[in-house]
Amino acid sequence: MSFELSLNTGTTPNLTLAEAVRHTAEAGLGHIGVWRHLVADAGGAEAAARIVSAAGLTVSTLCRGGFLTASDPAGQAAALESNRAAIREAAALGTSELIMVVGGLPAAAHVLGGAGDREDRGLDAARERVADRIAELVPYAAEHGVRLVLEPLHPMYAADRAVLSTLGQALDLAAPHPAETVGVVVDTFHVWWDPQLRGQIARAGAEGRLASYQVCDFNLPIAADALKSRGMMGDGYIDFGPVSAWVAEAGYRGPVEVEIFNEEVNTQDAALTLATMRERYAELVLPALHAAVPV
Amino acid sequence: MSFELSLNTGTTPNLTLAEAVRHTAEAGLGHIGVWRHLVADAGGAEAAARIVSAAGLTVSTLCRGGFLTASDPAGQAAALESNRAAIREAAALGTSELIMVVGGLPAAAHVLGGAGDREDRGLDAARERVADRIAELVPYAAEHGVRLVLEPLHPMYAADRAVLSTLGQALDLAAPHPAETVGVVVDTFHVWWDPQLRGQIARAGAEGRLASYQVCDFNLPIAADALKSRGMMGDGYIDFGPVSAWVAEAGYRGPVEVEIFNEEVNTQDAALTLATMRERYAELVLPALHAAVPV
Repeated sequence: MSFELSLNTGTTPNLTLAEAVRHTAEAGLGHIGVWRHLVADAGGAEAAARIVSAAGLTVSTLCRGGFLTASDPAGQAAALESNRAAIREAAALGTSELIMVVGGLPAAAHVLGGAGDREDRGLDAARERVADRIAELVPYAAEHGVRLVLEPLHPMYAADRAVLSTLGQALDLAAPHPAETVGVVVDTFHVWWDPQLRGQIARAGAEGRLASYQVCDFNLPIAADALKSRGMMGDGYIDFGPVSAWVAEAGYRGPVEVEIFNEEVNTQDAALTLATMRERYAELVLPALHAAVPV
Repeated sequence: MSFELSLNTGTTPNLTLAEAVRHTAEAGLGHIGVWRHLVADAGGAEAAARIVSAAGLTVSTLCRGGFLTASDPAGQAAALESNRAAIREAAALGTSELIMVVGGLPAAAHVLGGAGDREDRGLDAARERVADRIAELVPYAAEHGVRLVLEPLHPMYAADRAVLSTLGQALDLAAPHPAETVGVVVDTFHVWWDPQLRGQIARAGAEGRLASYQVCDFNLPIAADALKSRGMMGDGYIDFGPVSAWVAEAGYRGPVEVEIFNEEVNTQDAALTLATMRERYAELVLPALHAAVPV
C-alpha cells in the first residue's frame, strides 16, 4: 500500500506513547511518527518498540536529531553524543528515518532558553558547522542502517531553529553523502512558498533522497508561539494538490505524516483529531497523490 | 557621495510628511523614502514634492505600488489604476524608484480586512497574475521614467502580503523587461536567510536591476502583528557585514533606507530614532559597504 496515513505524535502532545499508539491503531492507521521524549518516557527505545509493535504499527520516523550549530567544542561534542543516541533509538524502533532539525544561530539560543552567545550571528559559518557535524555523523548512521533526514524549516525559524531553509539547500547539504544515509523531508508548512519547490522535489526523488512527506497547513495570523502556526489541512492557505502531486511524481510511496503544532488541535480530544486528519487527508491530499501515480 | 542614509517614513509612522522631512534634515540626512498615504495627506504629489525639496532632500523611493494578485477583473482593473497613480506620484516626487509589494493569495485577503475568496489558494496562478500585471504596467512606467522595484518579502508573508518570496524569483519576474523599468530591492529583513542571496545580489548588480538597499534587523520573538518584527540594526539576528558587502560589490552606491515597523521604535521620539539609526548604520552597515568598494 502506498501513501498510508501516519500520526506524528507532535499532533497529540498530551498523550503518552502508549496512548498515542492506541489512538492511532483505533483510527485504523498503520504508522506513527514518534518524538524522542515519548520514547524516553516509555522507558527507552526497546520498551517503546514493544509498545508500537504490539499494536501492529510501524514507526514512520523518529523526531528528531539535529541542533548542530554550536560554535564551542563542548556544545559540538554534546550535539554529536545526542545524535548518536538518536541514531541508536531509531534503529531500535525499526525506522530508518531520523528527522534532523539542524538548529539556529547560536546567538538565538537564549530565545530557546539556552545560553547562546548573543554576538554569534554568522549565518554562513553556522551552515558550515552543520555540514561538518553531518559528515561526522554519517558513518555512525550508516553502521546502524539509519538515514539522517534533513528538514528544511520555514525561513521564519532561520534564526532560532534551523539555518537550513530550503529543500534545495538540504539537497546540497546531502550531496556529499550516500542517498541511503542522508535524505530530506518535505514538510508542506515549511516549503509551500518556495518558487523552486517543484524542481527540488523532483531532484530529491531522482537522487533517491525523498525520505518522508509531512503535511499540515499554514495558518494566519502567525501564532504567539510561532511554532504553533501549523494547522489542520484545509484550515490555512496551502494548496495541497500540486505539492502532493510533485511528491508522488518524484516516486515517493511511503507513509504520509500529519504533524500539527497548534494550540486548538493539540488540546482537543485525540479521537477527534485523528478523525479530522483522516477526513481532510482523504479529501485534500490523497487524491492528488493517487492521480500522479502511473497506472 | 555613496551609501547615504535615508529615512523610510515607515520608521516614523506617527509623523506627517512635513514632520518626517524636518527630522530627516535636522539629523543631517539627505534622502527620505516616502509612503503614499503621507503624500495624499500632504495634499498630493506636487505639494509633497515641494515639502521635500524645500528642505533640500531627495526622495529615495516611493512606497508602494503592487497588490497585483486579484483573480477577478474588477480587482485587476483597480490594481492597475492604483499602480498607474503611484507611477505618476513617483515621477512627480522626482524619484525613479517605485517599490512594489506584489500581494498575497486572494484567499488571504480577509486577513487584511478585504473580501478574499477563501478558496483561492493557487500559488502558481497568483504568481502568474503578478507577471501579467507587471507586463501591463511596464509601458506606463517607462513613459514616466519610473522603475517598478520588485520587493521579495519574507516567506512568512507569502500567504497574505507577497507571493514574491526570493530575490531570484524577483529577478526571474523582472527578466522579460528592461532593467531601467523593472528592478529589485534588497531588504535585509526579507532576504537575510536565503542560501542563494550572495549569488542573486551579484546577478541583480550584473543585470543593472539593483534599485534600492533597505536595512533593518530580524527580531525575535515574531511580533503579535508579524509585520512589526522588524528591528533596529543590532537588535536582532542579522549579520549586516556580508550582505552589505555583497550589495556594494554588486555596484550599488545609492541611498540606504532604514525601514522599521516595530512598536517600540515607531512610538518613541523621532529624534532618538534618527540618532540611533545613524549610529547603528555607521557601526554595523557602512564599514562593510565601504570596505567592498574598490579604491
